Amino acid sequence: MTTEKTDIQIADALRAVAERESVTDVFFVACGGSYAHMMPNQYIVEREAEQINGIVLNAAEFKARAPKRLGKSAIVILCSHSGTTPETVEAAEIARKAGALTISLTHVLGSPLDVASEYTVSYTHEPRTMSSLHSAAVLTRLTFGILHAREGNKKVDDLNRALDAIPAIAESVVKERASKIAEFAEAHKREAVIYTMASGANFGTAYSYAICILQEMQWVHSAAIHAGEYFHGPFEVTDFDVPFIQLIGVGPSRGVDERALAFAEKYSKRMTVLDAKDLGVSKLPESVQEYVAHLIFQPVLRAYAVSLADAKGHPLTVRRYMWKLEY
Amino acid sequence: MTTEKTDIQIADALRAVAERESVTDVFFVACGGSYAHMMPNQYIVEREAEQINGIVLNAAEFKARAPKRLGKSAIVILCSHSGTTPETVEAAEIARKAGALTISLTHVLGSPLDVASEYTVSYTHEPRTMSSLHSAAVLTRLTFGILHAREGNKKVDDLNRALDAIPAIAESVVKERASKIAEFAEAHKREAVIYTMASGANFGTAYSYAICILQEMQWVHSAAIHAGEYFHGPFEVTDFDVPFIQLIGVGPSRGVDERALAFAEKYSKRMTVLDAKDLGVSKLPESVQEYVAHLIFQPVLRAYAVSLADAKGHPLTVRRYMWKLEY
Repeated sequence: MTTEKTDIQIADALRAVAERESVTDVFFVACGGSYAHMMPNQYIVEREAEQINGIVLNAAEFKARAPKRLGKSAIVILCSHSGTTPETVEAAEIARKAGALTISLTHVLGSPLDVASEYTVSYTHEPRTMSSLHSAAVLTRLTFGILHAREGNKKVDDLNRALDAIPAIAESVVKERASKIAEFAEAHKREAVIYTMASGANFGTAYSYAICILQEMQWVHSAAIHAGEYFHGPFEVTDFDVPFIQLIGVGPSRGVDERALAFAEKYSKRMTVLDAKDLGVSKLPESVQEYVAHLIFQPVLRAYAVSLADAKGHPLTVRRYMWKLEY
Repeated sequence: MTTEKTDIQIADALRAVAERESVTDVFFVACGGSYAHMMPNQYIVEREAEQINGIVLNAAEFKARAPKRLGKSAIVILCSHSGTTPETVEAAEIARKAGALTISLTHVLGSPLDVASEYTVSYTHEPRTMSSLHSAAVLTRLTFGILHAREGNKKVDDLNRALDAIPAIAESVVKERASKIAEFAEAHKREAVIYTMASGANFGTAYSYAICILQEMQWVHSAAIHAGEYFHGPFEVTDFDVPFIQLIGVGPSRGVDERALAFAEKYSKRMTVLDAKDLGVSKLPESVQEYVAHLIFQPVLRAYAVSLADAKGHPLTVRRYMWKLEY
């Protein structure tokens, strides 16, 4: 993967977006961790788009739901790391048949998803770091690129400045936190349940940590709790010994996060809090801080996962079912 | 609450919907259990609407997100049982200020939500039964009413026929299942974690069971797993002793449910499966079965909850934080 290659792929896709007669909807469609990456992009569309509507759906749900608005005025963004996720490949085929513009992200050019899609962008995979070539970052480039091409949204320049600064920020945060991360791992190595919590553009990161890291890679029970939902049910499970990993964002949903944190900290002695403000987000252009904070959370959280896996003696690569069985 | 009163309130709101110059978006906004009730309605809009876009958001997230498309062409449907949920009341005020048409559901006329909203529909609250006056049913009446008023959608008649039949169906299912329900309660009374799973229009019911019944009312750890997401992370926590309550729907997402069930049943000995087909959904008009199955699941699941609460000696009314503390 080279910068130049990804840049050309994105530019090609965005040219097709600009040439489209009309664009009323952007569907973000994927499964699991890739689906989680889509969520902040739907958030961006809802916050920023004047006319375009953003929808985020699991690929199997997308196929079943068969949204009536899917057609020539839709763009469908898809993502599958291997490019072989059957639901996502099928979603691309359905979308293309319906006349939508399909743009896929995958690590593997030549994969079924690449073949099924009109445009493909390939990305770098290295979860311990972040760059403008990582899938989550590529998605924000595509989203702001679409908003620029269709509605003249100007934030794409600030986004690019932020993406230039993020790799070094993430690297230094992971280094500075090394001892905190090791403490977390020791303190949580025998937990049967660890919740995650976030809101706004960071909810997807909390969700992927719950389902891909804790449930899938560590066999720890988990659920991603939306901080705005916390007081309407989930907070009743809070107790001194119930662990939460909470992400505190910036921007308008910070207050939602802070309210949940104030309560959770009072009744749980097991809060692990990652605050975007402590993670260097304020060094980035203000207009996009809320949209890119998750790009710093991701590699930092990965360091927590690597350390937890070490402490548990349960490597992140171990699976009992995934890729081993038919399902 | 009388049928006539609710009917008049719905008719008044739908008259305002019909008179609106344009309607491009319907926002479904609430918290917790009321938010969960909104989810199948967003699903209905996505499946049925030619032009209208459906968005479902937690009320705090709605306020923070401040969707750019919120304006005169939007309808905002809100719900709060007490009518006092501050986030939901504030969401109504924001929506009304933005020029949107606000229609609220509440149990309490004269409550802050009633006052804040242009139109209010009051509903019956008796979770062990279902009727066309229950909040979840009233919401489907509003949603199909909007689609009828704006786009001439014809399914409202089938919906009403289904709503007439559902109370008796739900009642008989609960009676027939009495011994199964008691067995479930005994078998699960010491579980620390119980997952729920569903897809399509039933996901909201699985979600509210996880957060309102299990976490809130029973202090049992839980998460609602989307059946389409199951194979992309969550399935790795499946084991012989991990309990799941799975809802099997009808309509296009049934295949998604069945695929997850086939796997889960193989590796967990603790599956509790509620299949809409076994619950009498096929007696209802086919065009709306997928949209109303959750109205049968809800009272049936409530019977499971009542029985579990008895077996645990932990009444559904007990809370440690909710309504007792400032938060």
